[in-house]
Amino acid sequence: MIAFPTVDTTPALVVDRAVLDSNITRMAVSARERGLELRPHAKTHKCIEVAHLQLAAGARGLTVATVSEAEVFAQAGFDDIFIAYPLWVDAARGARLLALSETVQLTIGIDSAAGARALAEHCDTSIGVLVEIDSGHHRTGVAPEQAGAVAGEAHDSGLNVLGVFTFPGHSYGPGLPHVAAAEETDALGVAVASMRDVGIDPVVISGGSSPTALIETPTVATELRPGVYVFGDAQQLELGTITEADIALTALATVVSARGEVVVLDSGSKTLGADRASWATGYGRILGEPDARITALSEHHATVEWPNASTRPELGQRVRVIPNHVCNTVNLADELTVTDGRHSDAVVDRWRVAARGCTT
Amino acid sequence: MIAFPTVDTTPALVVDRAVLDSNITRMAVSARERGLELRPHAKTHKCIEVAHLQLAAGARGLTVATVSEAEVFAQAGFDDIFIAYPLWVDAARGARLLALSETVQLTIGIDSAAGARALAEHCDTSIGVLVEIDSGHHRTGVAPEQAGAVAGEAHDSGLNVLGVFTFPGHSYGPGLPHVAAAEETDALGVAVASMRDVGIDPVVISGGSSPTALIETPTVATELRPGVYVFGDAQQLELGTITEADIALTALATVVSARGEVVVLDSGSKTLGADRASWATGYGRILGEPDARITALSEHHATVEWPNASTRPELGQRVRVIPNHVCNTVNLADELTVTDGRHSDAVVDRWRVAARGCTT
Repeated sequence: MIAFPTVDTTPALVVDRAVLDSNITRMAVSARERGLELRPHAKTHKCIEVAHLQLAAGARGLTVATVSEAEVFAQAGFDDIFIAYPLWVDAARGARLLALSETVQLTIGIDSAAGARALAEHCDTSIGVLVEIDSGHHRTGVAPEQAGAVAGEAHDSGLNVLGVFTFPGHSYGPGLPHVAAAEETDALGVAVASMRDVGIDPVVISGGSSPTALIETPTVATELRPGVYVFGDAQQLELGTITEADIALTALATVVSARGEVVVLDSGSKTLGADRASWATGYGRILGEPDARITALSEHHATVEWPNASTRPELGQRVRVIPNHVCNTVNLADELTVTDGRHSDAVVDRWRVAARGCTT
Repeated sequence: MIAFPTVDTTPALVVDRAVLDSNITRMAVSARERGLELRPHAKTHKCIEVAHLQLAAGARGLTVATVSEAEVFAQAGFDDIFIAYPLWVDAARGARLLALSETVQLTIGIDSAAGARALAEHCDTSIGVLVEIDSGHHRTGVAPEQAGAVAGEAHDSGLNVLGVFTFPGHSYGPGLPHVAAAEETDALGVAVASMRDVGIDPVVISGGSSPTALIETPTVATELRPGVYVFGDAQQLELGTITEADIALTALATVVSARGEVVVLDSGSKTLGADRASWATGYGRILGEPDARITALSEHHATVEWPNASTRPELGQRVRVIPNHVCNTVNLADELTVTDGRHSDAVVDRWRVAARGCTT
């Protein structure tokens, strides 16, 4: 039975607090049982309230992607933040990092000797750095065996090299989470050896993504950085890493047009985000309707093929949409509507998406 | 020669004022020469300043997609607004429409008898309505020959039926703009005849999309509603409806990582939007680099294959990215940085994206 919270107007992003709490606890317990630090990626929720829940459950600190995200969470009092990104640091960005480091134990990513030198030139060299390696996603990061060379250059530039990190983003594909987890473990092992070869013993060895973070592989990692796990989304569902019971965020939408097996909702790409991985079965799913698919998405319309005539909604009825990629969905909204979830569908809170739009 | 405005940090959305002015003038002149009213879609720019430029060039009024967009532009003094959307009107939305109608000559879309009855029940029946027809895009709208039936029901509900509208969104495909323009003309002709059959003579016959609006086809339309034309984007480039000289908005980005032919920029899907039509050649283009393609996009990274070694940027250098779908790009930003464009790359203004996030 799908609950429908009392929200004045649609589209609106709704968080089920009971499911959110369960997701936060499960990840925290799993990390603790394996002796791993948990440093959740706050780019997913961008909410002060969710970050507090994560720390209360035992997270060591936060991960963010940008300096401006770090600024929002530092302003709210969070004091241990890793910017998991190979920042290019010029004078302006260096000044912002310096200001942050006055109240925050700050760590940032590097993946080149030039990046390390730019950081050393424009910022306080006491800020910690982690060398990013490519464990198979082929986005940023150096080859694992080059970690020592970059770490050595960073050290020679006067930087405080604390360790190594990677994002196994190639876990995002059907059948790939276990493959990516194994490759991540191998890559981190090679990187650690490469750093020890130049006399740097990494104390932080950081990895993890939502599809891989709960996989119990023997690992050299000391820390996990999943993000999406707090809310879940249609990508995670289709990867098989969660079930619909783990979906904590949906977009409440209204049927605005209908014909035959097709209904059109008012939740377009300006609400859901336009993400559609090559392996995704649509632009999003409908809660409680495993056969329905969003087959077309424009800015203010989601076109849904809804084969089940007995549950197909009529004009003006509401449905709950599971977005494909919840990080981009949240970043489009100013606030999240929070429902109790456990005992009722009553609205119990509204959380501001405090770091929405913080891309710099 | 690509100009690089002086912007403190990246990513940032930059508008070339000279190109913007040229785009606004070209569309206004073309509409005027054909005797068509121009009612540009403000969902693209969401900026008060751009809307003023459009009206100063001769636009009759504005088109928007949502009630909240209408509220933003009404607050800024715009007094002739069409919400080109089959709104589902309940008591809450009806009250907002009523409030709007106190200062705005307001028109809204309907595409069902049920929608017409809901509007009549919850709102002032003096608000104008246009019946939406499907001219081939297959999103919302009734079949053209059903326009009369819906118009008749709306009239019988007491509504003020002013005419008919369509969005020929199937113009978005290589080789399709002319096909869609012809189908739109045919569909509007059928719809007008169908409405006259029930005794309603449409005074507003509204169509047009950026790919079709400049095509000089004989048409029954009285009004055009293009949106994207103000800024242009990579989709329009790849459709062949504009050239790179018509691109007025780019995302200024910095190279944060590099290897071989690949550079990684700090403009990810949280800056550009994740749009990628099936026929698009990538997730966006690079200004002045016709062979470069964004081949992968994540939230904070754009991975670019850049075959031309002689122009390939180095770590820390800036490039200008042409987003695939500029409407979603603008909706992610709080402000646009405006450069002179004509005489220099100096920053001359900053425009707030006033209707950003207005989805309800």
